Order: sequence, then C-alpha cells, then structure tokens
Amino acid sequence: MKEKVILAYSGGLDTTAIIPWLKENYDYEVICCCIDCGQEEELDGLEERAISCGASKLYIVDIIDEFCDDYIMPCVQANAIYENKYLLGTSMARPLIGKKLVEIARKEGATAICHGATGKGNDQIRFELAIKALAPDLKIIAAWRDDKWTMQSREDEIAYCQAHGIHLPFSADTSYSRDRNIWHISHEGLELEDPACEPNYDHLLVLGVSPEKAPEEGEYVTMTFEKGVPTSVNGKKMKVSDIIRELNRLGGKHGVGIIDIVENRVVGMKSRGVYETPGGTILMEAHQQLEELVLDRATMEVKKDMGNKLAQIVYEGKWYTPLCDAVKAFVTSTQEYVTGEVKFKLYKGNIIKAGTTSPYSLYSESLASFTTGDLYDHHDASGFITLFGLPLKVRAMKMQEIGEKNKYE
Amino acid sequence: MKEKVILAYSGGLDTTAIIPWLKENYDYEVICCCIDCGQEEELDGLEERAISCGASKLYIVDIIDEFCDDYIMPCVQANAIYENKYLLGTSMARPLIGKKLVEIARKEGATAICHGATGKGNDQIRFELAIKALAPDLKIIAAWRDDKWTMQSREDEIAYCQAHGIHLPFSADTSYSRDRNIWHISHEGLELEDPACEPNYDHLLVLGVSPEKAPEEGEYVTMTFEKGVPTSVNGKKMKVSDIIRELNRLGGKHGVGIIDIVENRVVGMKSRGVYETPGGTILMEAHQQLEELVLDRATMEVKKDMGNKLAQIVYEGKWYTPLCDAVKAFVTSTQEYVTGEVKFKLYKGNIIKAGTTSPYSLYSESLASFTTGDLYDHHDASGFITLFGLPLKVRAMKMQEIGEKNKYE
Amino acid sequence: MKEKVILAYSGGLDTTAIIPWLKENYDYEVICCCIDCGQEEELDGLEERAISCGASKLYIVDIIDEFCDDYIMPCVQANAIYENKYLLGTSMARPLIGKKLVEIARKEGATAICHGATGKGNDQIRFELAIKALAPDLKIIAAWRDDKWTMQSREDEIAYCQAHGIHLPFSADTSYSRDRNIWHISHEGLELEDPACEPNYDHLLVLGVSPEKAPEEGEYVTMTFEKGVPTSVNGKKMKVSDIIRELNRLGGKHGVGIIDIVENRVVGMKSRGVYETPGGTILMEAHQQLEELVLDRATMEVKKDMGNKLAQIVYEGKWYTPLCDAVKAFVTSTQEYVTGEVKFKLYKGNIIKAGTTSPYSLYSESLASFTTGDLYDHHDASGFITLFGLPLKVRAMKMQEIGEKNKYE
Amino acid sequence: MKEKVILAYSGGLDTTAIIPWLKENYDYEVICCCIDCGQEEELDGLEERAISCGASKLYIVDIIDEFCDDYIMPCVQANAIYENKYLLGTSMARPLIGKKLVEIARKEGATAICHGATGKGNDQIRFELAIKALAPDLKIIAAWRDDKWTMQSREDEIAYCQAHGIHLPFSADTSYSRDRNIWHISHEGLELEDPACEPNYDHLLVLGVSPEKAPEEGEYVTMTFEKGVPTSVNGKKMKVSDIIRELNRLGGKHGVGIIDIVENRVVGMKSRGVYETPGGTILMEAHQQLEELVLDRATMEVKKDMGNKLAQIVYEGKWYTPLCDAVKAFVTSTQEYVTGEVKFKLYKGNIIKAGTTSPYSLYSESLASFTTGDLYDHHDASGFITLFGLPLKVRAMKMQEIGEKNKYE
Repeated sequence: MKEKVILAYSGGLDTTAIIPWLKENYDYEVICCCIDCGQEEELDGLEERAISCGASKLYIVDIIDEFCDDYIMPCVQANAIYENKYLLGTSMARPLIGKKLVEIARKEGATAICHGATGKGNDQIRFELAIKALAPDLKIIAAWRDDKWTMQSREDEIAYCQAHGIHLPFSADTSYSRDRNIWHISHEGLELEDPACEPNYDHLLVLGVSPEKAPEEGEYVTMTFEKGVPTSVNGKKMKVSDIIRELNRLGGKHGVGIIDIVENRVVGMKSRGVYETPGGTILMEAHQQLEELVLDRATMEVKKDMGNKLAQIVYEGKWYTPLCDAVKAFVTSTQEYVTGEVKFKLYKGNIIKAGTTSPYSLYSESLASFTTGDLYDHHDASGFITLFGLPLKVRAMKMQEIGEKNKYE
Repeated sequence: MKEKVILAYSGGLDTTAIIPWLKENYDYEVICCCIDCGQEEELDGLEERAISCGASKLYIVDIIDEFCDDYIMPCVQANAIYENKYLLGTSMARPLIGKKLVEIARKEGATAICHGATGKGNDQIRFELAIKALAPDLKIIAAWRDDKWTMQSREDEIAYCQAHGIHLPFSADTSYSRDRNIWHISHEGLELEDPACEPNYDHLLVLGVSPEKAPEEGEYVTMTFEKGVPTSVNGKKMKVSDIIRELNRLGGKHGVGIIDIVENRVVGMKSRGVYETPGGTILMEAHQQLEELVLDRATMEVKKDMGNKLAQIVYEGKWYTPLCDAVKAFVTSTQEYVTGEVKFKLYKGNIIKAGTTSPYSLYSESLASFTTGDLYDHHDASGFITLFGLPLKVRAMKMQEIGEKNKYE
Repeated sequence: MKEKVILAYSGGLDTTAIIPWLKENYDYEVICCCIDCGQEEELDGLEERAISCGASKLYIVDIIDEFCDDYIMPCVQANAIYENKYLLGTSMARPLIGKKLVEIARKEGATAICHGATGKGNDQIRFELAIKALAPDLKIIAAWRDDKWTMQSREDEIAYCQAHGIHLPFSADTSYSRDRNIWHISHEGLELEDPACEPNYDHLLVLGVSPEKAPEEGEYVTMTFEKGVPTSVNGKKMKVSDIIRELNRLGGKHGVGIIDIVENRVVGMKSRGVYETPGGTILMEAHQQLEELVLDRATMEVKKDMGNKLAQIVYEGKWYTPLCDAVKAFVTSTQEYVTGEVKFKLYKGNIIKAGTTSPYSLYSESLASFTTGDLYDHHDASGFITLFGLPLKVRAMKMQEIGEKNKYE
Repeated sequence: MKEKVILAYSGGLDTTAIIPWLKENYDYEVICCCIDCGQEEELDGLEERAISCGASKLYIVDIIDEFCDDYIMPCVQANAIYENKYLLGTSMARPLIGKKLVEIARKEGATAICHGATGKGNDQIRFELAIKALAPDLKIIAAWRDDKWTMQSREDEIAYCQAHGIHLPFSADTSYSRDRNIWHISHEGLELEDPACEPNYDHLLVLGVSPEKAPEEGEYVTMTFEKGVPTSVNGKKMKVSDIIRELNRLGGKHGVGIIDIVENRVVGMKSRGVYETPGGTILMEAHQQLEELVLDRATMEVKKDMGNKLAQIVYEGKWYTPLCDAVKAFVTSTQEYVTGEVKFKLYKGNIIKAGTTSPYSLYSESLASFTTGDLYDHHDASGFITLFGLPLKVRAMKMQEIGEKNKYE
C-alpha cells in the first residue's frame, strides 16, 4: 500500500500541477484538502477536478468561524498590526490551515503534508512551523523548494499538466499575486513591484472601491462589544464571522481599509503589497475606540507593546508556541471590561468617531472638568508635582552644588 | 527693591488677572513674557496692555524655529504618538516655553516664575518639570493652585480685574478651551465633555475643514527628506517651520489630521479632546513612508518601542531628563539614511501613498520577486525553516516521546 | 454611636501612640488589627496591650499561607526583581495587608482605615492604593501625614502615650529601621544612610550570617517544582510557606541572599538599604535554573521584560490593577511545563548549580553535540545564515552600488 | 595568478587541516590570519607552521585594546547579559575578528574568507554576518559546512594532514571544547553535555579557582570610573585592557565569575556550558554599583531593556547593524555622569559592596531620611498618592456605582 500525502489544494494551476508531480516523484497516494477560510472561490466541481487530476480524495473543510473566533479575535483584541499597517490577514490564517492539514493527515494515516508556497515568501514558514509544532513526525514537502521540482513558470506547469493528461483550461495569468480570506485580500506584483509606482487602484481593488469612488454621503454605524468581542452591528446581533462580512460590505463601499506598504518579510527581504481589509480596519478601530474609555493608562501602554509582540509572533508563523499563548493570556485578561457601544461614520476612506459609551467607562465628566471636588483637589497636584519632579530637581541642585553646568540650560 | 517674578503671559483674561494678583499677594515686580510658538494671536498692543495692567515690562520671544527644529523634529523622527492618536502638539511646546521663562528670569535676576495652568491638567506638570530641571532654585507659583487664589470663574476674574482698575473688554467666553501653536490646535469642553457626543466639527474646526467639506479633487504632494529631516515640499526647498506651515495649509484644505480622543492625563483621569494637526499628520506619515523603504525590520521594531517611550516622556513633561536624551540619541542614530523622496495624494481626510524612492532603499525588486539568484536560493529557505522552527519541533517531539498530549493539537 | 476606624497595629510604639491620638482627634472607636505575615514577633499579650491603650478590640490575622501562595509565588515565577537586586519582600506584603484591613473594616462596618507608615516611604502608597482599589468609600488616615499629628520623634510619642495614661516600657530605639516577614527582612538607617559606608554586617544581620561566618563545608540541596511551584526540599514534600522557612534556614546558615542597594523609591528619592532574603534568593535561583531547561528562547526573552514590569508594578503598590492581572496571566501561562528537579550547593554566599532535570527539558544532547542528523543537518545552517544575514548584506551591497562608504568599514 | 583566500587561523588541528583542503579543493593561495584577542596561546613559531603547511603568508593581528575599548566597554556600560548569565565573551570578539579578516582580504586583494567554525554553533553566524556587512562581495567558505569537506573527526583531520605531508604532533584531544580571550573562557563538552551533571570544576577551571579553593581571607578592591569607563584599580591608573587583566587576576584568585548555564543558541537548540569571566563579572558589578548612585529610576528601567536588547543583538552576531548603533547611542548617552569610585570586597565567589561615591550622586541623605524639609514636605505625599491612585479609585467607585462586584475584593 502506498504512503499517503495530504496536499493543500486550491484548485488553481500551482496546486493542481503538484498532484501528478507528487505521484511521479514520490509515489504517494495524494489526498487533496481544500480549506475554506472565506476566499469566496467556487468549490463546486472541485472534487471532480482533484480526482480527475489523480488525487484519490478531496476534503473540503470550512474553517471560517474557527478562524474568526480563535485566530482573528485575539489579534483584534491585541490590536496586533505588523509594521504599523498590516492587519495580518494571511498570517492569521496559515496556522489554522496547517492544523487542519495535520488533522486530516492523522485521520488518513498520512505520512507527509505538501504545500505549494514559494521559497521566498512568509507562508512556507507559517505552514511548516504549524506542522512541526503539531506533528513533528510528519514529512513536509515544499514542492517549489524541492530538488525534484523543475517547473519555473506557469507555462512549465501547464506543459507538465498536459504531459500528464490534465487538460484543464488554465490561462497564462497576468494579474496580481493574491491571497484572500474572510478578513482581507492581499495584492502583489505588476506595478507594485516598484515602490516608486502608485498602485493602479481601479485595476487592483476587489473588496471595495477607492475613497474617490466611494459615495458622497457618509454612513453612521453602531457596534456593540462584550469583553472585547463584537456582538452586533447597527443593532443586529450577529456572530463574529457575519459581523466581519457586514463590515466588509460597509467598509468596501466607503473605501475604507486600503493599505499600500513596503514590508519586511521573515525571510529577510522587503516586499511591496497592497492590502484590502475593509471590515478588519473598522473592527480594529471600533475596538480601540471602546478601549480608550475603559482601559487605564498603564494597561494601554503595556498592552501596546504586547500587541506589537503578538503581531511579530503571528507574522512569523509562531502561533503554536508558549510565547503566543502567554501573550494571548495577557490580552484576554485586559478584555474583561471592554464592553460597550461605539458609533462612527464611514465616509470616503475615513472612520470618524461619533460617540462611545460603556458601563465600565473610566471617564468622569466631573473629574475631567475644571472644578475641584472630594475626589481631586487642585492642591493635590502640587504634592504630586513635587514628588514627580523630585529626581529632576535633585539632579539640577546637585549640578549647582558642585558648580558644574547644567547641560539643559 | 522688590523681587521679580516672570509671568507666562498670553494677553488673555486668565493671565491678565494674575498681574494684579501677584502684586497684591506677593508684592512682586511682575515681568510678563509672551512666548510665540505659532499661536497666530495678535501681538500688536500686547506690551501696552501688559503694562497698563501693572506689569513692569513685556518680553515677546519668538521660538517657532527652535520649536520646529529641536522639539518637533525629534518627535517626528521617533514617530512619537501618545496613545495611538495624539501628536503631542501641546506637550512638545511646554518644555521650550519653560526654558525661555528661565532664560528671562536669569537675565532679569528674577526669583520666581508664575504660570496660569490649571490644577487638573498636564501643562502645569510640563512647565514645572522644565523649570525644576533648569533652575531648581527658582520659586514656582502656580496661580490656580495657590492658596491665595480665590477666583473660580471668568466672572470672578473680570470682577477682580475691574476692582484693580483694569477695564479691558473681556467677554464671558462660551467657547472651547483651546491651545494652539504651529503644530496643532487642541479643543476641549462644551459637547466634547461627553464622550457619547459626536463633535460639532462645523463649530469646532479652526485649521481646516472636515473631510466632507474638503475639495472633490485630490492633490498630489511630493516631499524630500535628508537624514530624517524634511527639506522640500513640491520641489521647493524650505526650512522646517515653513514646511509645517505649507503642510498645514494643504492638510487643512483636504480635511487631514482631525483626531477625536479620550486620553489619559498624567494626573490620573481621562479627558476628551479633539486635535487638529493637519501638517503634522502629513509630515509623520510621509516620514514613515520613507522609513519603510530604508529601515530594516529589527530597527523598525525597536524604534517603535522607543517612539512609544518618547511619547510617554514628552507627554509627561520629562524633556530635560537623561532618559529623554538617551531615547533621542537612539532615534537620531536611526535617521542616518532616511533620505529620499515621497509622493502622496491628499483627498478628503486621506493621505494616499503614491510612490517612494531613496538612494538607500533596501528594497530590491529582484530579491522580492519570484526568481531565484545568487543572493537568495529558494533552497536556502529550507535550511532557514529547519533552524527557525527547531524549538517548536523539539518541543513537539518531546511531548510524543514522553507520551503526553501536545496542547496545540 | 461612634464611627469605627481599623488601625493597622503592630504593638510597637508608633502604632500604639496612634490609638489615643485617633480617639482624641477623630473621636473614633479604634479597632486594632495585627496582620501576621511571618514577622516572628510575640503576639501573646498583644490583645491586652491594645485594649489597655484604648482600643475596643484586636484582630490577629494570619496571612502567611495566602501571602506565600498568592503574592510571593507569582513574583517568583515572574522572576520579578526590582532594580536588579530587590526581591520585593515588603512590596508584596503590603497589598495583602491592605486587603485584610478592608475585610475587617467591612465586617465591623468601619468607615476609615488608619496606618502608621511615614510620608517619605513606599509603604504609604502600597497601603493606600490597595485600600482605594478595594474600598474607595473608606476614609484613609495616614497618621504621620495628618495635619493633626504633632509627634516628630520617639520621645514625643512616649510623652504622648504617658500623657494619655499609657505606661508601657518603650525604649528609645537606636537600631535600624526594619521590616520583616516570612520572605525577608529589610534594614535602613544608621551607617547605611551614607552609601560610602560599608554595612556593619555583624550588627545588622538577623536571618543568617555573612559569607565569612558561614560554615567551611558546603551543603547540597535538591528541590522539585510542579508548574513553577516548589513542592519539595531534599525529598520532603512541603507547602510553600514551609519550603520558604526551610530555605531561609539553609540560606541563612550559608550566608546567602544579603543585598546592599541604593534604590529609587516611588516617591522620587534614592534610599539605601540592606535586605536579607536567604530563602527567597535560593527559590528564585532554583526556579530560574529549571526554566533554563524548559523555556524556549523567545519566551524567556519576553518573560524577562514582563518580570521587570511586574517588579515595577508591585514595587509601586499597584497589585490590584488590570495591568497586574494581565502580567500575572502572562506569567502563569509560561509555567505550564516548569516541572522538574534542581540540585545545587550552598557555600558561603554562593548558590552553585549541581544538575537539573525535567521531563519537559528542551535540551537534547544529540542536537547540541557536534554530529549531524535527521533533525539538523549542518548544511541547513548555510540556508539559515543566508536569510538571517540578508538585510545586512543587501545594505552593504547597496552602499557599494551607489559608491558610498560603508560606515562599518 | 591564483585567487587568494584569507583563512582565520589558530594553529590548531582544525584550521591547519583547512590549509591543504583549500588548496586542493579550491585552488586558492591561502593566506593565514591569526587574531590575538587575548587567548594567551603561543604565537612563536606560528608563521613557520602555517607556511610549512602550505600557506603563503601569516598575519598576526593584535586586537586586544580595540576589543576592550570598542566592543567590551559598550556591553559593560549596557550591562548586556544574555539570558541572565552569559557575559558575551565569545560573542563580542567575533565581529571584530571578522572585521580584521576583511581588512586583510582588502589589503591582499583576496576574493574569499574561510573559517573553521562548526555548523551547529553561533560563531559561524557571527563571523559571516560581520563579513556580509563589511564586504558583501567576498565569498565565505565555512569549511565544516562545505560540500567538499569530508573529515568528521580529529582522526580524519590528522590522516588528511599526513596524507598532505603535514606531520605535526597533534594529539587526539579529549578535553573540553573551549574559547578564550581576554574577557573569558568558555567550556563545553564532556560531562557538561548532560545538564543533570555537576561540572567537574577541578578539571575544568582555567582562569581561577572555585570558591571552595579560594583564600580564607577576603580582599578589598577600589575602582574608579569616568563616564562609564573604568580608569583605575586600587588607585593605579590603567588602560581598560590592563584593568581587565588585573580584575581577572583578582577574580580568578577569589573564585568569582564562574557560570554554569543551559543557553539557547541562535541556531535553535539549547546547549550547556560553563563560563569563567572573573574580571568581567567584577567590572560589570562595579559599574552597576556606581550606576545605582547616579542614574535616575526611569533611565535605569529603560536602560535595562536596552541592555537586554544589546545582549540579544551581540549574541546573534548583529554588531554591524543600524540597530546595534542606535542601542549603543542610547547607552553612551546614559553614561555621561557615571563617574565615581566604588569599593567592594572579593571573598570566595562573592563581590560584596563596601561603599560608593560620586560627585554626581543623586542620593541625598537629608531627603532619604525621616525628616521633612523645603524640598519635600510629608504632606506632598498625600497629593501624590491621590493622583497616583486616582485610576484605581475611579475604577472601584465605578463598580460600586453600577452595583457590580469588584473583582479584587
């Protein structure tokens, strides 16, 4: 009996060509697995296609809700943003895809997992670290880095497929390189390869329009959160995945969440991409809008560092690590009172705050206002400043005492 | 001969009332000092006014260029933003104002400095820490916190002035509480005191318009930087202060840089304000746009933490401290190659990147693209991932070895 | 009926004098509360003493186990050390004492809590922040900072007591100012007030001897931990408090854990003290010794920052805050596999490692050794270094390309 | 004419065998370079040996002072310690060795550099990152990872040498694997490969004795520092390298600075080693002892993070990077006033503080003591605590107001 390999399969040219290649070069039984994380691709007929190309079986696994609840939400709560801009859409999905591939490998008794990620990107790392962390005994085949892999272009792949009796209508693609899921879509290639070039947004955008094409009329939105989790949009209770879908619709319509970035990959080089994350951008902003009212200063400050740390961890594919667990534990702890309602207006790329309320609000109008009271006497500030400024003053006095110039003068 | 006090003087009701109060309660000779940091207030006639109210002298000190070059620029280079939103406009100005007050105190042989900041705000701290650090021997009089201060409202102040022969046309103000300089204007009070309220932007905005009122047509802008310092806008070389002025004009016109925030004050409570920082928002974005191309990943990551740290330090008024110096030394070091040109489009509140170039760009199109080469062989990634993922794999193997469940499964 | 005040009472002169003072100045019914956190003071007769001085009641509350399990252990697990040296002995105890005072206040229906901490130390902050966080409605009376407090010396206090009919045999103390609990003892005052002076250890030490007085013969100790909690010493299972006692005995005997430090107080000045923490020093070292084997590099690195953060938080008395909770959640998460055995030798102030084992050890002899194998091929390192060093190389190439000097040459 | 390769040469078996191997496999002219960083090895006759083995030339380069001044001192000032224990002795030396190899390569017009570091260690990374950063055009040959390398043991190497006419008296080594320079010596291998084993210190130690073998009598030492740089020991002015030598003598004699650690290598696995750093341990402690007196709290806190960061950077071989520069700039800035004298006693492994003084001391006896005064009034503490504790109190009041349980109760 042949050994089995689980192939991460999308139905596209790249992963299709891998099927015969795996059989020819490794003599595996190939079991395809298509993970649905909201990429909105046609799944009808996929099983037939996989099998016609030589696979023995196709699994289709819907991970959308698990992705939203267990992978996206911790990152939203942490406000995890990579290099100030990137909302980690692809990064968050990869570990969960890796986990599902491992689950199917276990169920099938497979001995290997194969993916079609390239040798220059981040995704190979994210897939493989997930697999190593979950199933260190499984062999990983990274087709594009494999010594036996010879194809270097779409043309090569089409020729290889045809030579192996696969006559599907793949066209030579001239578009952007993209990755899509329920949270975002990324675009690379074409004019984006030169950072001096402005993106051709009319050509490029998929999830919405540019601010210039957005409606002249803004639109108010209200959202509620409970313990840092969104629970409704415009008064309608929804599960997280539906909230993201609704925010994608609203954000896309109003030109929100388009990011143009030169980012640093884990593998050491810079790359340039455009991300559309309409709903995600809104969700993160709305969550932060609520946290402003509820979190104290010290917590906000350290949580910001932890959010940056989580972004690094997730970007690097280190989801299944003790450090990731510990950072998430920190973040979860901070969300206990992140409950309340936020209102904002979407208008041509802008998310404009329009009011925030929370039962746990630490804002006190009487405290913030000019007047003095029981809780805070203006004179208290004098004592505070005396102590707060004591180290500075002692230093300056010391300089006077020893007759040395104060360098700040 | 009477002792002299230097009074930070704006010409407004608050600081005007302090003149007779100081004379009456402390028997000082009062020397007024008006610091021009770009607040765009009428300075003609100010000397006459001060003297008519009892001051012996008025100094007018223009600090705009020093403010821009030595206080704003380090914060821009650090991308120092307080609590994700606030560009520190007021915070950066206070230490320099404090320094000028001390210089005049020294020149005049004064023994005290007086300010009119309230007892609930951050500015009292920033003024006083600056004075303590520079001149620990000077007495600081915070009029509003002083035991001898009895006025609690504008009405009280007007009555006090009149009782002391000052009959200036001060009206009972019903507007926002504002602070303005070349970098920004802040607004507090009125409807802003309730975080549930949307700001009344038509009433509130001073430096520009809201995105909705901005032109239908976007506008491209190019900027150049040398070692992290802006040197030109749209091809025209300018000093930093003129660049900020020009960016204020452009940003204000296109509705850029309006921030609505609930922030945590140093004195322990939350307050709510709206900031307009049109030019500053553009300048910080443009600077970051260039850094993306020039800074490596590790530097960006630690610099982000240092920027957050600097924001804390500056917000707290700790400009004249060894820690502030050290953080600025870190930041300066990172700016060595932040030289190049950025292009972007302003459109209804948006700053949309439109291309970036630098002689020191670390982006390499051939590296980023799909192809393999001398510098990077796809197979290198295999070795990288083996080592990068080794700790995860060893952990997972250990769990298998001792027969314990892997918690990530 | 009179209002009640809960007085933190030790039986010493300071807190004894407060009893009549509270009655005279505030007309309270005074309820004393003595918290036993391991200070090894005589508690027999304390009730009689308190009542004879005017208190209506004395509570004695033993918090030793709660202190060890819920306050000390999180800090040990975090390796929380303030300013590189101080193991937080006093800092950790104060919030729990505050909590107990509040509990008794609630039980008694008291409206105020009074403590005798001085106005220059950290403890006033720690007590009062705990009380504010737990019972914001309770009035706090800090006797020594109170406007009605007039005593400035032990002599004053003795005179005051006698004037109020209290004739206890208090001597004019000439010793160090000390704070002791099960974890440590601190010493301040006398020769320590001059940082240029060497401590007089023969006079000063309470919990053990100096290294020079320790036995000539070292002593091996083994300890076991489960999930970061110590469970046995030298093969004998014990609860945490007994482990600390036993380690105190061992460490004290061998001159371990004596720290001489100039530290920065929260209130803004430096102070100098000597701490004896014999058992605590051993426990923290032993815990770290085990973590070396079990924690991965990335977790260790971030955990170090979190440990420093926790030390700051605890030193500042901010135990009952969301940030403290979140940091503890992080730390707890990292302890899941900190299980194993450590062996070390105590010898004249030294803790010398003598072997560590853990079922979850990530150390692999075959990996660490010179040989190549399945898990790690020497050639993998080449790929790793190519990618790891890519940013450096690209930068250097860029400088060559544009003909500019490489600043590192 | 043949191309030239620069070989990092020690005279030992490993690097000797590389000479004929390079000639045979790459047809290079081999130029040997022996870098003297204080390893105390015999250099007489080394030139003859290298040439007799086939090298065309031998350079001997003394880097000791440059190493001490420009590489060690920044790390001492930063208190850069890797994983709480390792003082970076080997890590700091590698980049400078790499730099010297590049300098000689440039002088000789060589096209390659060869080193003999193994494929599992950190040193290969440190050498190669230095070379990449300084001379990206040079080919790097890591002999032990090279496809053409076939020797797997000392026996193989001896046989290979003999087959190529080299008949030197190399013995089959059975000792520890060691690296030594002026700062430290590291030991790996033998019993250390099992973390459960206690090190055999009698067999292992080179630079000094164990605490148990140290003199019964302690020894006082005084040191002075100027701007963070040590300038004298026991009253005798010396350059830094001589200070390190003298402290090595003193520390070695008294059993100071012996570290047993399981550390995490960059390449992903844990390794176990013992380090002797007698002088370095003293120098770092003494420097910290002085900083306690001179640095304010906020600077100390952030500097600690920066020191940890520098330790990571140096351990990873990233010396010639913008981040390393920036961190060093931060640290340098903090050293401006680290000037003064420290005294301590060395006794059987202990460094016991015995007094510290500095003209820039921020310690004030009158401030630290109990009394109140102009600079600090006990009542100021009340105002301070009111504001410092305000966020906690507001939170607790809010919970009472909305009738929800306070989770800290």
